[in-house]
Amino acid sequence: MAQKKMILDLDVGVDDTLAIAYACGSPEVDLIGITCTYGNVLVEQSAKNALDVLHLFGRDDVPVFLGEPHAIEKDGFEVMEISAFIHGKNGIGEVVLEDSGREPEATPAVDFIIDAVHTYGEDLVYVPTGPETNMAVALQKDPTIADELGAEVLMGGALTVPGNVSPCCEANINQDPDAANLVFRSGIPATMVGLDVTLQTLLTYEDTKKWRECGTVAGEKLADITDYYIKAYETTAPYLGGCGLHDPLAVGVAIDPSLVTILPINLMVDTEGPTRGRTIGNPDLLNDPYKSMGACVEVDAPRFLDEFMNRITGLVAGCK
Amino acid sequence: MAQKKMILDLDVGVDDTLAIAYACGSPEVDLIGITCTYGNVLVEQSAKNALDVLHLFGRDDVPVFLGEPHAIEKDGFEVMEISAFIHGKNGIGEVVLEDSGREPEATPAVDFIIDAVHTYGEDLVYVPTGPETNMAVALQKDPTIADELGAEVLMGGALTVPGNVSPCCEANINQDPDAANLVFRSGIPATMVGLDVTLQTLLTYEDTKKWRECGTVAGEKLADITDYYIKAYETTAPYLGGCGLHDPLAVGVAIDPSLVTILPINLMVDTEGPTRGRTIGNPDLLNDPYKSMGACVEVDAPRFLDEFMNRITGLVAGCK
Repeated sequence: MAQKKMILDLDVGVDDTLAIAYACGSPEVDLIGITCTYGNVLVEQSAKNALDVLHLFGRDDVPVFLGEPHAIEKDGFEVMEISAFIHGKNGIGEVVLEDSGREPEATPAVDFIIDAVHTYGEDLVYVPTGPETNMAVALQKDPTIADELGAEVLMGGALTVPGNVSPCCEANINQDPDAANLVFRSGIPATMVGLDVTLQTLLTYEDTKKWRECGTVAGEKLADITDYYIKAYETTAPYLGGCGLHDPLAVGVAIDPSLVTILPINLMVDTEGPTRGRTIGNPDLLNDPYKSMGACVEVDAPRFLDEFMNRITGLVAGCK
Repeated sequence: MAQKKMILDLDVGVDDTLAIAYACGSPEVDLIGITCTYGNVLVEQSAKNALDVLHLFGRDDVPVFLGEPHAIEKDGFEVMEISAFIHGKNGIGEVVLEDSGREPEATPAVDFIIDAVHTYGEDLVYVPTGPETNMAVALQKDPTIADELGAEVLMGGALTVPGNVSPCCEANINQDPDAANLVFRSGIPATMVGLDVTLQTLLTYEDTKKWRECGTVAGEKLADITDYYIKAYETTAPYLGGCGLHDPLAVGVAIDPSLVTILPINLMVDTEGPTRGRTIGNPDLLNDPYKSMGACVEVDAPRFLDEFMNRITGLVAGCK
C-alpha cells in the first residue's frame, strides 16, 4: 500500500490525542511529524502531550515541532476556562502519562511544514485540528506552498449549524479568525471538517470500555483520558449522549473522503463585526466554477465509528 | 401528464412576475391560485400585480387571494426603500399593464391555503417567494395541514452564503423571521431555495431581448419589467453580471428537483440577537435521522436557464 505522508497540527487536547491514535492505528498513514499549536493548552504543553502520547503508543520515532504560541494579530495567549474544563488543565484529562524522555525538535514547526511541502508536494496531507496559525505563518513566509501542498483536511468551522463559542463561530476558528481567513483564501485545496459533521460522530463510555478491556497501559490510559472528555460533554452538551469525535474525524476524512459528503465551495472567514469567526461561502467567488475547498455536510457516522473503534482498539491492543 | 397542483404565494415583484410566467409556461403545472403577501410591495399592490400579470398571459382563470398585510409580530408594514429601488414603486418596474378588470377573491388567502391542503393533500405544492406569514398564520389556525401538504418549495434564506440584508439574513426571511421559524419547525416537508443557488442563476439583457423579439405585448412588457430589475442589479450587485432568478428558480425546483443538489437538513430560523433571521441547521435535531427539510446547495445553472428561457419565451410568444 502506498502510504500518505501526513502532518498532524495539534493543540493536544483529548480529541487531538484520539487523532494521534487514529493516525498511528492506520496502516494508510506515514505520520512524518506533529506540529504543535496553542488552543486547548499552551503550545509547550501541546508538545509535551504529543511526545508523551506518541511514547504511550510506542511511536518515539515521530518528530514533534513547536509552533506559533499565539494568534497572528495578538501578543499572547491564555487558555480559556472552558478549554480547561473540557480537556483538563494538562489537556489530557488530568491523566499522568510516562514521560517520553524526548524534547521537541529544534526546527520551528513553520519551517518543517514549508520543507515538507517542498519535499512531498502532492503526496502530503496536512491535518490541523486547532487554530490555523501555523499554516498562515507558513503561507506568509513562503506563499508558493499553496500551489504545492497535496491537501489540507482541517477540523474547524461550522457551515450549516451554529458555532460552539458563539452563534456563528466554532472554537478552533475563534482562536485566530484572521489566520483561518488567510488559509481559506490562499487557494490551498482544503476540506473543512466542521461541527456540521463532527457533532454527529459520538463516543460513549461503552466504547472506551473496550480499550480498557485490552489489558494494556495504552488502552487504560486512553480510556481514562477520553472518559474525562465524555464526562465534560455531559455538562456542556447533555443532549448529544456522548462526546464529539472532532479531531479524529479529520484524520478519518484525510484517509477516506468517502466517509463524508463534501460540498465544493470557496469558503472565507468573517473577520469583522458580530459574525467574526464565521466560516461561510465567499460571495465574490460563488459563480467561479473552480472551488478550492470542500465543506463536509453529511457523514456516514456508523461507518466512521466502526473504523475509529477498529483502528484504535487495534492500536492499544498491540501496545504494551 | 399528471399535473402538479400549485399555489404561488407572492409579493409581486419583478422576479415574482417571472415566477408566474414560469408556472404559466410549464405544462407540468396546474396553477390553482395565487395567494398574495406583502414584501416587495404592499399586499394590495401584490394582488393587483398578480391579476394584471395573469391577464397579460391570458390566464384570467387563475384566482388571486389577499393574504396577511404584515408580519405576525408587527402591526403594520412599509415597503423598504431598497425594495422600491429594485422592483420599482409599483413592483413591476414602473411598467403599466392593462388592467385585468378582476378583483381578488372574497376568501382570505389563509383560508384558501387550508382548504387547498385538505382538498389536494399530497398532490399540492406550495411555493412562497416572499415572507412566510401566510403559511405561518394558516398553521396557527389549522396545524393539521403540516402533515397533509405534499411539499413546500420556498425562495428565501441563505445557508452557505451571507445574507443580502445583513451578514446573516436574506430579505424574505427578514420580513418575518418568526413566521419562517414557525414554518421551518412545523414538520412541513420543505425545500429551501436560498441565495446559495439563486445568485448562481443570472439573466441578462441578451435574454430579455429574445422576449421582445417575439413581437407580442406580453413579450415586450415582460422584457420591460425585467430590464428594470437587471438595471437595479447593475447598482446593487455589479459583480454578478446579471439579475438573480430568485423566485422562478423556486418554481423550477418545485417542478424538477433534479435541477439542484438538495442537502437534507432540519432547519430553523434564529429569532433573537444579532443573527435574527438567519436560516441554519437546528442543533437539537442534528442527529435525528429524519430530515423534514432540504436546502439547495448546488444548481445546474445552465440547464435551469435553458428551461427558464424555453418556457418563458414559449409563453410570451403564444400570448397576444
